[in-house]
Amino acid sequence: MHPLSPTERSTVRRGKTRSTSDRAALHAVLDAGLICHLGFVAEHGAPVVVPTGYGRDGDTLYVHGSTGAASLRAADGGEVCVTVTLLDGIVYSRAVFHCSVNYRSAVLHGRGATLTDRDEKLAALRVITDHLAPGTWGYAREPSRRELAATAVLALDLTEAAVKIRTGPPGEEPADLTRPTWAGVLPLHRSWGSPVPCPELRPGTAVPSHVETRPDPVGPGRG
Amino acid sequence: MHPLSPTERSTVRRGKTRSTSDRAALHAVLDAGLICHLGFVAEHGAPVVVPTGYGRDGDTLYVHGSTGAASLRAADGGEVCVTVTLLDGIVYSRAVFHCSVNYRSAVLHGRGATLTDRDEKLAALRVITDHLAPGTWGYAREPSRRELAATAVLALDLTEAAVKIRTGPPGEEPADLTRPTWAGVLPLHRSWGSPVPCPELRPGTAVPSHVETRPDPVGPGRG
Repeated sequence: MHPLSPTERSTVRRGKTRSTSDRAALHAVLDAGLICHLGFVAEHGAPVVVPTGYGRDGDTLYVHGSTGAASLRAADGGEVCVTVTLLDGIVYSRAVFHCSVNYRSAVLHGRGATLTDRDEKLAALRVITDHLAPGTWGYAREPSRRELAATAVLALDLTEAAVKIRTGPPGEEPADLTRPTWAGVLPLHRSWGSPVPCPELRPGTAVPSHVETRPDPVGPGRG
Repeated sequence: MHPLSPTERSTVRRGKTRSTSDRAALHAVLDAGLICHLGFVAEHGAPVVVPTGYGRDGDTLYVHGSTGAASLRAADGGEVCVTVTLLDGIVYSRAVFHCSVNYRSAVLHGRGATLTDRDEKLAALRVITDHLAPGTWGYAREPSRRELAATAVLALDLTEAAVKIRTGPPGEEPADLTRPTWAGVLPLHRSWGSPVPCPELRPGTAVPSHVETRPDPVGPGRG
């Protein structure tokens, strides 16, 4: 267990009791998430936040995009922030002020570097594919040379990271505890529906098990 | 229907067929989301992306935070980017390159302004509460003067915004259509679980209907 680097940026200033600096917790949040939000500073100096796919290999995060996308061009070599958030429930308090949410989040800071080596890029794409659509690599057709060239992959070291996790009932003012007001948590669940086949599917093509039996996204306390 | 402002930043460069410049679509995405990702540029010039609660009133978005939070201090008067993303499913293609996700996203750009007027702030907090925990305002205790002072609310005009929506089966290379490979969509559903009461609840306090019968988050095509 390596503690997360408590550098100035990644030190959680608010809700300190909710933060954790445990590397296993960081990995668990990243592995439980499906998409991330990539933040970068555009040429004109304003922040831009875009949702995108990602995958983790050890302490490297790979973020996926098109070579034509402004986001990955701007992020190459520049400072980026990648945030993964899982909303786990709504926290109803006896007081509006203490209403909150239960969640898990990871906020990563660093300089992104786009991969140029073909093999490295292919390996990173496999990591991203294994994260977003596990079982697909080796089942679907692998990227052609042209497709690989059209894909940009950004690598980010998980050196500077902060994890925040909130679980459990609301915090309350002692004076509010006598109120006849309901308080508690409404959990939010994420689950896969039934696979919807592509209309042009060849007749008799069965749903593969990696789709049919894909486990539901990992909830709080199970990761 | 006002088309969204197609300024340089909010023009969708990638996946043009997936973008829409319809104000009703923007409102629908914002109303279906639960939390947003707020991006700003920190003092040292690097981007920061934090998850937070929000609410919409007409063409104003309110974002919620603590007066002690660095995010809202940095965002006040500065350029911010607020992104709301709903992941609706995983798109399995016959080729790894065309694997994708179905999603709805709204990306908003502008200068944030923190509210100072007490009544304005209270009204904005109600908008945020009605979004995240509808039914709570008027049921739970309203913010005290002290609590209101400890809460920061950022207002952002929905002037510069881009909406992207992807639905349906994968796009494929024509040559891949003859492959005996399954392709289609695995939908991701979000639903509320059973309310978990606070352990310190006064005995006999019933779950209010705004919690018990809260409708599940709005899926694609229903907003």
